[in-house]
Amino acid sequence: MSRNAERRAGAPLTNPRSDRVRSVRALARRSVRMQSGRFLVEGPQAVRELVRYAAPSIVDLYVTAAAGERYAAVLDSAYAAGVFVHSVSDEVLAAMADAETPQGMLAVAQQPEVSLTSVLAGSPRLLVLLQEVRDPGNLGTVIRGADAAGSDAVLITDSSVDAYSPKVVRSTAGSLFHLPVVTGLEASATIQELASHGIRTLATEGEAATSLADVDLTTPHCWVMGTEAQGLPDSLATQCDQRVAIPIYGKAESLNMAMAATICLYTSATAQQPLAPY
Amino acid sequence: MSRNAERRAGAPLTNPRSDRVRSVRALARRSVRMQSGRFLVEGPQAVRELVRYAAPSIVDLYVTAAAGERYAAVLDSAYAAGVFVHSVSDEVLAAMADAETPQGMLAVAQQPEVSLTSVLAGSPRLLVLLQEVRDPGNLGTVIRGADAAGSDAVLITDSSVDAYSPKVVRSTAGSLFHLPVVTGLEASATIQELASHGIRTLATEGEAATSLADVDLTTPHCWVMGTEAQGLPDSLATQCDQRVAIPIYGKAESLNMAMAATICLYTSATAQQPLAPY
Repeated sequence: MSRNAERRAGAPLTNPRSDRVRSVRALARRSVRMQSGRFLVEGPQAVRELVRYAAPSIVDLYVTAAAGERYAAVLDSAYAAGVFVHSVSDEVLAAMADAETPQGMLAVAQQPEVSLTSVLAGSPRLLVLLQEVRDPGNLGTVIRGADAAGSDAVLITDSSVDAYSPKVVRSTAGSLFHLPVVTGLEASATIQELASHGIRTLATEGEAATSLADVDLTTPHCWVMGTEAQGLPDSLATQCDQRVAIPIYGKAESLNMAMAATICLYTSATAQQPLAPY
Repeated sequence: MSRNAERRAGAPLTNPRSDRVRSVRALARRSVRMQSGRFLVEGPQAVRELVRYAAPSIVDLYVTAAAGERYAAVLDSAYAAGVFVHSVSDEVLAAMADAETPQGMLAVAQQPEVSLTSVLAGSPRLLVLLQEVRDPGNLGTVIRGADAAGSDAVLITDSSVDAYSPKVVRSTAGSLFHLPVVTGLEASATIQELASHGIRTLATEGEAATSLADVDLTTPHCWVMGTEAQGLPDSLATQCDQRVAIPIYGKAESLNMAMAATICLYTSATAQQPLAPY
């Protein structure tokens, strides 16, 4: 009997209709997340990153016997961090999960309280502000791309999709726990606040006269990206220090928002860190 | 009465259970597409690009009265190109469509026959070869990104998702009609074929010793990308001229395939076309 199996020797939870299961499953609903301040983290990869970077925020971790054997290293880290680990039946895990394939493991965690003030106190060099991003997959992809590009934080307006919805959490592939994600911001006030801290704001806009290739990206700046469908409203673009177009070399009309963000952030990262960092 | 309304003055198709409706709707199935060589193009944006770039491939165009008024310019181009336009009721359009919101317009088109040979005859400078791409949204996003970056073609192996599935077509946002998309290829033979035409093959690989920033991208080359989950098999990477890593500046383990492809292709485009092209 392995050490993990011993530690989980208490009888597994087997009733998929219990109050506990219902309360976990309810976290797929935005209203329940808002009220409780908690959210779901599904699958061993995401749980591993959660344990690694935000273990104190974990309320409970649920795991099936098969997943406990298969992802023993994740469980060991969780035990070492003092996380409450509960053994559950396959039925219970399926009943708790939002994902179709949660791979036998999920956690309930407390949403971090991250403010723009605390981000600005860290003298950030690279930021992205998303205005009214609606698609969960797009938001998750931008958070993942911002992480890969070494951004200091992702800023999201209050009219956007909830960053703690299960689909966003899944599509960040753990990046949600790697960098501060500030939610509930008002776009115009945020642009002002950034300016007052000497951070240049760059509005992405297909029609802009300045190309991405011609912008100085070595100093601290924040990319400001609009909605998938309409782009950034002119009132907000006007507030920014510069309007920047991503060049289109072929016949495409535009890039989708997540791709545009990834290209801008990687161009910035390359400009700010000319030596290969890996 | 507008000119379009006049030209569509024949009675609209109103029976959502007719054989015609059924045969259009059946194109959502891969087997039916394979057999007929036809596919669905949904929504006014995609139809507009289809009319603009591949009008001769259109078998039929279906439009509701409301969409005909709203997207009159698309219809005018279609009439000018000699396309068969059919007026249909809202119910018929909904019954034909795979999309939840086809916005009142869809076309049935013949899949183009594009071969690697014809692509190579055009002396391509920038290509991407996707091995076993499974996610329709990812494939569509790569085709769109490849178009934006001015790639000469997208090459796809036979083990990949069908490029003519409605979800892929939708997520290309019209780019499917802007550049040759060669499907059904065998990866190893394709890499050999590219080499014999003097096109360098670059395998993307997280662990590679060479960074994207250090590769000469001014000469003709093809990015070779593996599956979302496993990356490129070593047997294929070995066949390529060079293994290249996209630098990760933050804590993310990797980028998703579509983002990785977009970053590589844009870096190539910038290297090949140093002057802003727009």
